[in-house]
Amino acid sequence: MTSPASSTQSDDNNSKPRATNAAFSIRIIAAIPNKPGNLGRVTTAIGAAGGNIASLDMIEFTGNWVIRAITVFAASEEHGVEITKALEQVDGVQIRQVVDRTFELHEGGAITMGGKAPLRNRDDLAMAYTPGVARICEAIAADPTAVHRFTIKKNTVAVVSDGTAILGLGNLGPEAAIPVMEGKSLLFKEFAGVDAWPICLKAGTVDEIVKAVQQIAPVFGGINLEDIAAPACFEIEERLRATLDIPVFHDDQHGTAVVVLAALQNSARVVGRSINNMRVVIAGVGAAGVAVAKILLGAGVGDIIGVDRTSAISKSRTDIASNPAKTWMAANTNKNNFEGSLSEALVDADVFIGLSGPDLITRQDVLAMKDQPIVFALANPTPEIMPELIDDIVGVIATGRSDYPNQINNVLCFPGIFRGALDSGATQITESMKLAAANAIAETVETHELDAAYVIPSAFDRRVVERVATAVAAAAKQDGVCRPS
Amino acid sequence: MTSPASSTQSDDNNSKPRATNAAFSIRIIAAIPNKPGNLGRVTTAIGAAGGNIASLDMIEFTGNWVIRAITVFAASEEHGVEITKALEQVDGVQIRQVVDRTFELHEGGAITMGGKAPLRNRDDLAMAYTPGVARICEAIAADPTAVHRFTIKKNTVAVVSDGTAILGLGNLGPEAAIPVMEGKSLLFKEFAGVDAWPICLKAGTVDEIVKAVQQIAPVFGGINLEDIAAPACFEIEERLRATLDIPVFHDDQHGTAVVVLAALQNSARVVGRSINNMRVVIAGVGAAGVAVAKILLGAGVGDIIGVDRTSAISKSRTDIASNPAKTWMAANTNKNNFEGSLSEALVDADVFIGLSGPDLITRQDVLAMKDQPIVFALANPTPEIMPELIDDIVGVIATGRSDYPNQINNVLCFPGIFRGALDSGATQITESMKLAAANAIAETVETHELDAAYVIPSAFDRRVVERVATAVAAAAKQDGVCRPS
Repeated sequence: MTSPASSTQSDDNNSKPRATNAAFSIRIIAAIPNKPGNLGRVTTAIGAAGGNIASLDMIEFTGNWVIRAITVFAASEEHGVEITKALEQVDGVQIRQVVDRTFELHEGGAITMGGKAPLRNRDDLAMAYTPGVARICEAIAADPTAVHRFTIKKNTVAVVSDGTAILGLGNLGPEAAIPVMEGKSLLFKEFAGVDAWPICLKAGTVDEIVKAVQQIAPVFGGINLEDIAAPACFEIEERLRATLDIPVFHDDQHGTAVVVLAALQNSARVVGRSINNMRVVIAGVGAAGVAVAKILLGAGVGDIIGVDRTSAISKSRTDIASNPAKTWMAANTNKNNFEGSLSEALVDADVFIGLSGPDLITRQDVLAMKDQPIVFALANPTPEIMPELIDDIVGVIATGRSDYPNQINNVLCFPGIFRGALDSGATQITESMKLAAANAIAETVETHELDAAYVIPSAFDRRVVERVATAVAAAAKQDGVCRPS
Repeated sequence: MTSPASSTQSDDNNSKPRATNAAFSIRIIAAIPNKPGNLGRVTTAIGAAGGNIASLDMIEFTGNWVIRAITVFAASEEHGVEITKALEQVDGVQIRQVVDRTFELHEGGAITMGGKAPLRNRDDLAMAYTPGVARICEAIAADPTAVHRFTIKKNTVAVVSDGTAILGLGNLGPEAAIPVMEGKSLLFKEFAGVDAWPICLKAGTVDEIVKAVQQIAPVFGGINLEDIAAPACFEIEERLRATLDIPVFHDDQHGTAVVVLAALQNSARVVGRSINNMRVVIAGVGAAGVAVAKILLGAGVGDIIGVDRTSAISKSRTDIASNPAKTWMAANTNKNNFEGSLSEALVDADVFIGLSGPDLITRQDVLAMKDQPIVFALANPTPEIMPELIDDIVGVIATGRSDYPNQINNVLCFPGIFRGALDSGATQITESMKLAAANAIAETVETHELDAAYVIPSAFDRRVVERVATAVAAAAKQDGVCRPS
């Protein structure tokens, strides 16, 4: 199963093609002697070094030289250096500048703020600021619900992290988390028009983090928790949900859960079986694993077995008493109290959902599953098993990667969830709002489009956010969790 | 002394002119019968009601009707209703809609956030978000100073309030403070290109507020404290300055102090006396009063007497022991230990600076001051004495209002202060940075422009922010408080 969108690139010198990515793209400014055939030599050299040329522009032309900007996707930083060196070997070529495009994009940050009203003169100032603004303050003091109408609270979400579980990188602290929260804020804006702002909290106790978020809540219409390590994330979310009157949503848990459910619903249609009769094995019982188990239970999945590094989570496990999430798993899943290893759990299982680490399972494990198994290998960047190892024996395979089909991407969920919640004045995100979001995502894949390689819409399918928002808002109203409007 | 920019409007019916303001402006959509002379009747009716027509546009023209949008400045909400009623009396006119322009401007908030990079496809996503963003996170984890280069921290300031002293309105809580912090953020962006974001903290103890700001500090390159009541504001600022490695600036204190000093320097030039020999009486010993006293002492003002509601702050006052700010005032100002009332303190004083409330002093008080007295009556919206009562007996009068000359407006200071601090990598705002800002503001008024009615530049003089920023950055480097670049 080769991705049509894959950016691997073969070359003429029998060196192995490497998986290049925009994340490691560079822009090389090179002066090339103006001789026939030179551009061919340049592109050949880059290709031979494994570089993938994304664009090639002429910047300047002087009789003897052509100055070109060449954007090249590489497989790593080192690969970028190799490509540049290979280019330098081409007769007469001079490298003027090499820019790392990812670092360039993040220079000074990826987001900005701006005014919605012009400030041309003292009359503008008198309305936006003093004395006019005092009228708005007094209106809110007189009627606290006016804050949702006359301030940014109407459309603003805090993207909150303490930096303890940044992507797959672990606990790098709040400063190192900022670029992720900026990227997430950017996605909120671009996909759903939500004004999101990063809040990275200096690491503290659960009490301190809960308190800080409660204190900053007045400005925000919603709280998106992000990259907070388990098990602290469970308690933080629970306590904030209980005390704040705005939606609180830990995307690593619930965003993943919603998109997994959507993909599973469509995968079930592809293999022609009902999720009610399925046995699902989840590898990884952290924030995402527990949330996936909960939503699948809510959606009626027959049996769920969570497996951590030790073994299956069962009522027999005495080592999990101090972990409320795993205790919950033991009490609410694994109805036959299965006690074995991951490989043993996979025997005759319908579905594998990996939320753990690279290369966790083997082709043999997948062969032991039911016929036409559904495999979601979601570890990033390296899945629990590479799709090419099993694409001949699975019913459906999905990953977290954009360079394979069926990318399980949270961006399908969180923009629409918050758009719908803000639009409907929801004070929380209920279970049925999440189920509604999953259904909306799943249904965006039309019956005639549904296919083993297309169980989930593209992140860039702009219909998704609208449909999710509409479904979520309707569910919120149905649940009676909206502020009176 | 009548402001050339005053928007008072007389009319033809001998009713008293009222001070109209954009803050109370309305847009009336009216259908006017298409008959000769009707537009004159409409504008006359609005004028007779004391309304000030700012603009008049035709929206639609049907044979019998002209639909017009009429923007009218009023003196109050009630006045806007009166004007609308007067317009309705004009034969045949129908009011279709009346919009309060200040509320309209704040609908949904006055600021927004946006992306600096496009998100057109998965390659854009791979650089702005995963997997590319992980490279930035790792770079920051490896070198913490990189946070100032590759995140929004480089150019972002938190505008922090607990809502305990909103404008002149008092403690209305953090939600009601949001519109002010939005307006302030807008000014930061429009005047200095600083990305500012409102943080309104649920009221708490000093400890809680300090802790919350410390926790949110990672994302921000500076902290602008705003509308926090004295004396809590002093301790909050002091403790944050001591513990954070980014500039912390309580604008109500220091912004006011900087602009007052600038205005006083130029006023001294106008009346031909040196500030070193002056005796300055400050009415109001809150956040701003104490900060003004400190900066004037630093600038070499001869004698300063602070006066609160009771009397002059002197070493004889036994009732101020629990107020560290007033204790500081008693120890460091009032060198002759004057013990009387405000009126008594003003006898033979050179300068009155009012930071208190409306109508506090009389013409008699000003007559008792030295010849050519300098009066800064800064209470808003109603000064300690109205300029028209004393403009024949003062050397200089300044207020906080935009409809009189010499507006003491913090917007002359805070955008440039933070621009200079961020540009120079300053870790704090030092006393010499503030003095440099004051000098830069004062010097923007050229010698040939300097006049009793022009001691301070206009808030819309765009040269100010550049000059302040440059001077502040130079002072920061001089003081050695900048991060190595």
